[in-house]
Amino acid sequence: MKFKLTLFSLLSISIATASAQSTDSLMLRKIYDEELVNGQCYQNLHYLCKNIGQRLSGSANAQKAVDWSKKLMESYGFDRVFLQEAMVTHWVRGEKEVGKIIDGEKQIPVAIAALGGSVATPAGGLSASVIEVHSLGELKDLGEAAIKGKIVFFNRPFDPRFIETGSAYGTAGDQRFAGAAAAAKFGAVGVIVRSLTESIDNYPHTGTTRYDADGVKIPAAAISTMAANQLSNMLRLKKLPVIKFYFKQSCQLLPDVLSYNVVGEIKGSENPNKYIIVGGHLDSWDLAEGAHDDGTGVMQSVEVLRILNATGYKPKNTIRAVFFMDEESGGKGGAKYAELAKANNEEHIAAIETDEGGFTPRGFSFVDASPAFLKGINKNWSTLLAPYESDRLVAGGGGSDIEHLKATRPGIVLIGFRPDSQRYFDIHHTPNDVFENVNKRELELGAASMASLIYLIDQHGLNF
Amino acid sequence: MKFKLTLFSLLSISIATASAQSTDSLMLRKIYDEELVNGQCYQNLHYLCKNIGQRLSGSANAQKAVDWSKKLMESYGFDRVFLQEAMVTHWVRGEKEVGKIIDGEKQIPVAIAALGGSVATPAGGLSASVIEVHSLGELKDLGEAAIKGKIVFFNRPFDPRFIETGSAYGTAGDQRFAGAAAAAKFGAVGVIVRSLTESIDNYPHTGTTRYDADGVKIPAAAISTMAANQLSNMLRLKKLPVIKFYFKQSCQLLPDVLSYNVVGEIKGSENPNKYIIVGGHLDSWDLAEGAHDDGTGVMQSVEVLRILNATGYKPKNTIRAVFFMDEESGGKGGAKYAELAKANNEEHIAAIETDEGGFTPRGFSFVDASPAFLKGINKNWSTLLAPYESDRLVAGGGGSDIEHLKATRPGIVLIGFRPDSQRYFDIHHTPNDVFENVNKRELELGAASMASLIYLIDQHGLNF
Repeated sequence: MKFKLTLFSLLSISIATASAQSTDSLMLRKIYDEELVNGQCYQNLHYLCKNIGQRLSGSANAQKAVDWSKKLMESYGFDRVFLQEAMVTHWVRGEKEVGKIIDGEKQIPVAIAALGGSVATPAGGLSASVIEVHSLGELKDLGEAAIKGKIVFFNRPFDPRFIETGSAYGTAGDQRFAGAAAAAKFGAVGVIVRSLTESIDNYPHTGTTRYDADGVKIPAAAISTMAANQLSNMLRLKKLPVIKFYFKQSCQLLPDVLSYNVVGEIKGSENPNKYIIVGGHLDSWDLAEGAHDDGTGVMQSVEVLRILNATGYKPKNTIRAVFFMDEESGGKGGAKYAELAKANNEEHIAAIETDEGGFTPRGFSFVDASPAFLKGINKNWSTLLAPYESDRLVAGGGGSDIEHLKATRPGIVLIGFRPDSQRYFDIHHTPNDVFENVNKRELELGAASMASLIYLIDQHGLNF
Repeated sequence: MKFKLTLFSLLSISIATASAQSTDSLMLRKIYDEELVNGQCYQNLHYLCKNIGQRLSGSANAQKAVDWSKKLMESYGFDRVFLQEAMVTHWVRGEKEVGKIIDGEKQIPVAIAALGGSVATPAGGLSASVIEVHSLGELKDLGEAAIKGKIVFFNRPFDPRFIETGSAYGTAGDQRFAGAAAAAKFGAVGVIVRSLTESIDNYPHTGTTRYDADGVKIPAAAISTMAANQLSNMLRLKKLPVIKFYFKQSCQLLPDVLSYNVVGEIKGSENPNKYIIVGGHLDSWDLAEGAHDDGTGVMQSVEVLRILNATGYKPKNTIRAVFFMDEESGGKGGAKYAELAKANNEEHIAAIETDEGGFTPRGFSFVDASPAFLKGINKNWSTLLAPYESDRLVAGGGGSDIEHLKATRPGIVLIGFRPDSQRYFDIHHTPNDVFENVNKRELELGAASMASLIYLIDQHGLNF
């Protein structure tokens, strides 16, 4: 592109700043101006990623992140900053994992990473024939005779036809989440799972797996999509027993440890015991810096409060930024937050979760939204949000940290922040989830879009 | 994010595939499925970037790109593939430029790049005192006495408050585009221009500058935003004459050379002489691979035809993919295309230009669109495009290559493809405009969105 004056966009900005005189549109413009000119979330994220780094639940680094986050919130002069104690998951990866495809005498090293929550292999590693499957259902069709003593290789790829990649993740995810538990029932000795991404790369994408409480626990690892394709090709070309897989991992689940959610709030001037919250999770996986997952989410959450303060806005209801602990490993911080909200009779009006990356905002999804609600909210607010291109207000998920709040109050509205989804699973849960892959403006626009929605909810409620 | 089944998106896909039975919605789903499953534009772009590389207008590499593009189109079996001769701009950069801030005895090297079309400095370089300005208007206020014999440093930054970065580019762009011509009138001996980006980086962002035909031509270069900030700080701290700037560049404008637009078409079954075209520019700047500018645009354009063929669609009107030559340096390919369209009495219904990067599509802008047109097109088509999140149909720019078509036919609709704009000016016209900064799915979604729009125009016209 050479040179062009995009008249329409200039028009939009002037409409929002001058012509449309409503208080709401002026306030939204003020929010965006504050963030795009004076935004601090990008530099805060830099500190979190580069000076603290990975923040695996239960780790010393997670504690460092808690301490720093509390100080950060205090530095902004919010009305109240506090920690909520929670006993959280403490899983450790141990030594770097080793994975190999064994083809007779040939041993081909491949990129693997233990799944979060997985048990270790025997100290010398585990070697067995491989059986490739594409669904949990296929295990039943094959039966114990075919599976017993083998390593089950779950290899169903992402379906590229979904427009939002979160849907591809959702439909492929049972392999990682429930594959080990399911395969163990048929006598499998281990599980390797194709990384949950459409990208063909050589990074294992980690993430949790869950065992049945009373079931056999077998070790489980993610394998890169490139290695998965290679293994699958080799299995297709050779008879099954010729190809074996070897892996070694020393991860273990330790007893829960004390950790904290970090909470900052601006007290409501009219309804101090009514809450609108925005949050993400402070813990991360341990393979990188947890930049998009979910450093961007927590730094946007605190930024929402900073923006509202900076614009001089005095909310009617109490606005909170919540940094949840242990989202990745067990979700115990989110559960604790809801438990305390109920115990303290805090009336939560709405909760926004930002945990889909710090990409350009597209809009918000509302949990269990009725057609009437969607019609009402779109009619009233989409025109206000349209100049900022964050006006896709749809039914959909909220997020796993806020979902516990559902039980605290019938009327609560749970909301998911929806950024553009195309790049998220390229880096999700991999060594590539680093600060360098976050764009400053995209991050800031997300923070401003959430500050705008919170302002609108605070002013007008959500009774559509 | 841990694990989530995004019900809404699954719902969208099922609506588009099953429930909504209209021919149009089924065809759009077919287009997206074809592209997301069998897309070829990413691998084609890889070839263009890595096996050919930069394609500066008039260069040997531009000719290589023409030859390969023609072969590529022929390999897809389109009804007709042909070249259009055009005499195009032939500017050459010469030796790598040298730029220095001179502070007494101290010489600080800084990153600069000659602006396209600029003349050279004297062979030994040019050294002069610097005067910093922030607008073309400021030159007049300062007057010849203050400017004569100096290097004018245009340093107005991007305005971060624009939501779409193209608007910031548009409002800052006159410094680069017209700064040298304007400064020359007041006796300046050279011009350096702050790179047109919000990003604070150390890359010069090149691009054209235009001289007045009868004016004095002074050398002009882009300076990185980091170096611009440094120079500005030094000028603020010290008295003006102490700080000088030195630069040396050996670029020159050679006589126009013969080159080509590359055109592929699928013949219309009902109206073979009515045309709907989609195009981008094949030439690029010479600092990198022209990946987003505009390798993505040309590879998407040919992909639109490939998709339509692959789905078995027989268009009523002739559909063309056009690779324009010389967009960056002079725009002569675009002018030639329009000239031939008029001379050959080709009735162009609509033209889409894709030259804002291969990022996630947001929608389309329509040149000189009336409120009635926008209302009509949104009412009829935005619901069809919404499942693909490419439904922002607004008034706005088309693009500099297709704008020449305006004169060929009163009713023609000029359309700009509008991808997400946040990351474009981070890499625009820099050494960072490489294949690695293109996301496969984002690129493919753009191609599918344009194939969808072309299908709808072909079926229903644009008489809103």
